[in-house]
Amino acid sequence: MQNIRVGVYGASGYAGQDLIEILRRHPAVELVFATSGKEAGQPVPGTTLRYVAPEAAPLIGIEAVFLALPHLASAPVAASARAAGAKVIDLSADLRLDTPEVYEQWYGHAHPNPELLPTPYGLPEINRDRIRGRAVIAAPGCYPTTTLLGLYPLLRARVIEPGTPIIVDAKSGVSGAGREPKPHLHFVEVFGNLSPYSPGRVHRHVGEIEQEIRKLDDMTGPLIFTPHLLPVDRGLMASIYVTLKPDFDSAEAQVLYEEVYANEPLVMVLPPGQQAALKHVVRTNGAAISLTPVLPRYLHITSVTDNLRKGASGQAVQCFNLMFDLPETMGLL
Amino acid sequence: MQNIRVGVYGASGYAGQDLIEILRRHPAVELVFATSGKEAGQPVPGTTLRYVAPEAAPLIGIEAVFLALPHLASAPVAASARAAGAKVIDLSADLRLDTPEVYEQWYGHAHPNPELLPTPYGLPEINRDRIRGRAVIAAPGCYPTTTLLGLYPLLRARVIEPGTPIIVDAKSGVSGAGREPKPHLHFVEVFGNLSPYSPGRVHRHVGEIEQEIRKLDDMTGPLIFTPHLLPVDRGLMASIYVTLKPDFDSAEAQVLYEEVYANEPLVMVLPPGQQAALKHVVRTNGAAISLTPVLPRYLHITSVTDNLRKGASGQAVQCFNLMFDLPETMGLL
Amino acid sequence: MQNIRVGVYGASGYAGQDLIEILRRHPAVELVFATSGKEAGQPVPGTTLRYVAPEAAPLIGIEAVFLALPHLASAPVAASARAAGAKVIDLSADLRLDTPEVYEQWYGHAHPNPELLPTPYGLPEINRDRIRGRAVIAAPGCYPTTTLLGLYPLLRARVIEPGTPIIVDAKSGVSGAGREPKPHLHFVEVFGNLSPYSPGRVHRHVGEIEQEIRKLDDMTGPLIFTPHLLPVDRGLMASIYVTLKPDFDSAEAQVLYEEVYANEPLVMVLPPGQQAALKHVVRTNGAAISLTPVLPRYLHITSVTDNLRKGASGQAVQCFNLMFDLPETMGLL
Amino acid sequence: MQNIRVGVYGASGYAGQDLIEILRRHPAVELVFATSGKEAGQPVPGTTLRYVAPEAAPLIGIEAVFLALPHLASAPVAASARAAGAKVIDLSADLRLDTPEVYEQWYGHAHPNPELLPTPYGLPEINRDRIRGRAVIAAPGCYPTTTLLGLYPLLRARVIEPGTPIIVDAKSGVSGAGREPKPHLHFVEVFGNLSPYSPGRVHRHVGEIEQEIRKLDDMTGPLIFTPHLLPVDRGLMASIYVTLKPDFDSAEAQVLYEEVYANEPLVMVLPPGQQAALKHVVRTNGAAISLTPVLPRYLHITSVTDNLRKGASGQAVQCFNLMFDLPETMGLL
Repeated sequence: MQNIRVGVYGASGYAGQDLIEILRRHPAVELVFATSGKEAGQPVPGTTLRYVAPEAAPLIGIEAVFLALPHLASAPVAASARAAGAKVIDLSADLRLDTPEVYEQWYGHAHPNPELLPTPYGLPEINRDRIRGRAVIAAPGCYPTTTLLGLYPLLRARVIEPGTPIIVDAKSGVSGAGREPKPHLHFVEVFGNLSPYSPGRVHRHVGEIEQEIRKLDDMTGPLIFTPHLLPVDRGLMASIYVTLKPDFDSAEAQVLYEEVYANEPLVMVLPPGQQAALKHVVRTNGAAISLTPVLPRYLHITSVTDNLRKGASGQAVQCFNLMFDLPETMGLL
Repeated sequence: MQNIRVGVYGASGYAGQDLIEILRRHPAVELVFATSGKEAGQPVPGTTLRYVAPEAAPLIGIEAVFLALPHLASAPVAASARAAGAKVIDLSADLRLDTPEVYEQWYGHAHPNPELLPTPYGLPEINRDRIRGRAVIAAPGCYPTTTLLGLYPLLRARVIEPGTPIIVDAKSGVSGAGREPKPHLHFVEVFGNLSPYSPGRVHRHVGEIEQEIRKLDDMTGPLIFTPHLLPVDRGLMASIYVTLKPDFDSAEAQVLYEEVYANEPLVMVLPPGQQAALKHVVRTNGAAISLTPVLPRYLHITSVTDNLRKGASGQAVQCFNLMFDLPETMGLL
Repeated sequence: MQNIRVGVYGASGYAGQDLIEILRRHPAVELVFATSGKEAGQPVPGTTLRYVAPEAAPLIGIEAVFLALPHLASAPVAASARAAGAKVIDLSADLRLDTPEVYEQWYGHAHPNPELLPTPYGLPEINRDRIRGRAVIAAPGCYPTTTLLGLYPLLRARVIEPGTPIIVDAKSGVSGAGREPKPHLHFVEVFGNLSPYSPGRVHRHVGEIEQEIRKLDDMTGPLIFTPHLLPVDRGLMASIYVTLKPDFDSAEAQVLYEEVYANEPLVMVLPPGQQAALKHVVRTNGAAISLTPVLPRYLHITSVTDNLRKGASGQAVQCFNLMFDLPETMGLL
Repeated sequence: MQNIRVGVYGASGYAGQDLIEILRRHPAVELVFATSGKEAGQPVPGTTLRYVAPEAAPLIGIEAVFLALPHLASAPVAASARAAGAKVIDLSADLRLDTPEVYEQWYGHAHPNPELLPTPYGLPEINRDRIRGRAVIAAPGCYPTTTLLGLYPLLRARVIEPGTPIIVDAKSGVSGAGREPKPHLHFVEVFGNLSPYSPGRVHRHVGEIEQEIRKLDDMTGPLIFTPHLLPVDRGLMASIYVTLKPDFDSAEAQVLYEEVYANEPLVMVLPPGQQAALKHVVRTNGAAISLTPVLPRYLHITSVTDNLRKGASGQAVQCFNLMFDLPETMGLL
């Protein structure tokens, strides 16, 4: 068995914690270090390690690093890890947009390491061949992953009516907002509540999702995307509403999705009449999708993931497996 | 001060409990009886009454009855209460559809009391003049109320693009599903979960909502309506997505809504940039609405209510006030 | 009707918000100002006021101030409000301990305004006569109120076995920890969790509770007090375990409690066999108590309140009513 | 590697679901059948099996059965499984009490299979030697396990003051109440609530816990035991208060517990000052314990488990491992 020496940056955040949880049981991984700015010196739960400060991470001899860091902080670490010879799986947004210009448009500042762009987009079910064996991967987050998996068969088949909007009403568990205490994440504010935020076309993931949609079908209309903060700790639902071309009946979607995902161990297409719910996927590394043919030209799709797993850490490990030619679901089932 | 003698049927259900809570403080109401099939003989919380079996309700001298009964059970009680001289506010679905034919289409059985149809639809912000002074009112439930309030200014102005679908992604607190224990309402099943149900065009409220939409604007396209069970006890959000006519810019919607609802004490239109959340309305008798002009022709509306208040009991009392020529918000602020 | 001019300090915290909610409907109150350090200039929900900075509060002509401020910040404001002629209801801990020495022992710093001590302890069911008509009252918080109400009949009857410990296993909703965002109050940390804190005899309320216990029965043993953070927004339960004197049988407690609280509109003693639960009191200004005679000499008492109401704002208004010779429950039922 | 053929009765209940989850990954287990009265024919999640009706379970060649059945239903199945040659791990209460007389006293009916009594009590940390290699084990449930682990070092050392009560204030997640829908388990009733039930000495587990306590220290006083329904899906906390003998200081308890549990991989004794919380154990097969030396003679212990894991399924598998001479934690870490 291989023993790939691995380090995790940003290991005390919620995605980082789940990464550690997966990697410490992964049969081909030796977990060498886990960084945390705030908790350096503290024990890393479930391991015999202690967190180290990011600048003290022992990169020598490391074969792969996972970056669960904030955007802007992540790209420079990616660059130095590459320079030290490690492969990089970046869970931040820094490497997901293809050009520095688009990055600046959505993030409001110049890209810190434009030389790293473009980086392959780490959604294996769509991009598997561009991930396998590569050295740097931009692993997409929860909203793009869940939305794109929900749309992929339609986009690939090019059956969405050109120019019509793709409407995504999304709901995320609170861990998706990070571990930093903020007023709107206080238990009392979230308990019993449901609240939209960054609605319409202002959320930063709109750019990333549209970029990937257009690669598959450049005729689609605008993405309308409203995320909501859901009073649960984890889980993400994308409720997708699309208009279809006249020559594709929504009733055909079930067969299309079942075919496209037939060999995907991490994507479950539910039988007709069943509805995808958070319980299908929470604490798993997979996605679940259900289809409702509302009217011949209108299809409603529900796509769910665990935002910290298939929407973050699990997907990053799936990419890692591909990058090192391991079985793709090793450590994930 | 008037002292209107009132009875409540179905008073031990969730809507019934909230009705009692409102009526026992209402300055013009004398609460005479509260029925409960299962809890007959038990004390009615917050009052000195005990529940009576519905067939034992002392109708003589009663001036108004509220019916918080299941559909099919409600209409016959409405008929006998009318015969006894009481005005009727029916919170069930029995009197909401205008014809027995449409009722049978959605409920799958013949209407028990077709002679009562059509009954004025008790949504005061839209139908005030048809409610005032009347003897029987069909008070709409949580999904129709929240959806229709969110759409009303657009419908009245007839600015929705003809033929385009109206998409409503709705989320309801669990009390909306009633107090009867059922497997999917078990705490463990709901906790940490979010699940769609009756998606597309199969939920019974689709017929009722479309009926009322068409009265205001008969050119709109189909309603696409997906409710979700939300892990909170109360609160309802309708997330509405519409396509506008080319001559109406979504940016104009804010002014339109503020004008339409300017004198409505129970509907709050939030300022631009703020988002309606359940916390705005839970345990109040009002609705809150926020508007997101996504693109000139695409508008996103968030409409929220407390499903047991403005979506049930509060609205029923608002109708009652109109029926008896009382100040419309008496007991509701 | 009187129109008492009132101001609230610390009005944007959780207790302050509930105070505003009560006072804005209170028939004898004119709410003149509400302070907030952080939200000065913002609207005060449910009123036409805007928050003012505490130093800008218009004290002239004010007849009463409520102080929902942190300890140490509160006493100086109490002093200056008194100097300006206003009566003071202090919800902080600053005035609850009888001497500066005891204060310093529990709070670790000198008392800011020792001249204000001792102040009558504002628990009306126990201290009514010392509150009525007074100018400054120290309103106790959630843990002491709930614990003392649960013990009062036993203490007054002096039936607890001398020297035996009084064990209080307490559980509080998260709003009791304040509105300031902190890591352990993050939604994700609290959701699905239950955690003890400050167990045994280290919580600051131990000193205050023991002080009041000893005034009623100076033979009792030590208080053992373990609070827990409960994953709900509001509500507090004190589970109390006591050993009784041989000549008092636990089976007699039910009658004793019913007698002591017979005329207390805000304390409900449940019938034998029923258990006090948070739902009995949340969003009310009252307490509920249930008794379990475990064995003749061992009694278990469950006492519950809404930590923001009878455990804070409601009790403060109850004191205010007494201080101004108003009906004690005005605005509270 | 061994391949032990295993069946699970009652596999669709909450404990049964967790059992399947553990067993399907257990390296020495071949899961042959899973019974469900209500869901016979449905797929067993995470496996390729379908539930069979209990009477159709293929017992031939089965080496071990787990019984996650209601009491009274379980013992007869234990008897027939033994007759068919299978070892039995019974998760019900049927085999936990040592005599039919005590069983009848707590359960109110004659024991269905008195010939099976006494059965070794399956709490490995206390009874390991009586479990190893045996054919029938009574695996204790969540309250007894969590309480007994919290008390064991004190009982073994016989340092609890004779005759003094052992007070256990316990809180359980809702899955402990089973999957059957009941009014008090409805989401709306539990959400935001906390409620005691069966307080004092009436809960059926009192007999079982006292039986095991007395085997270790027959001088202890009565158990006072109050369980509470906690608004979380899983997790159990026993808050234990004891009086110590004069010659044992509560400050010595930390060392005692650390020694007793030093080699127990599934029991974590937290360092002084840290408090055991549900988050330490939920979705693990272990327990966590923290100690608070309140005063020299008063010790407060917090003991936590996942009620479905160490309090049910995980413990059953731990017993299974011992019964088949497998490494005790196989499949559990």
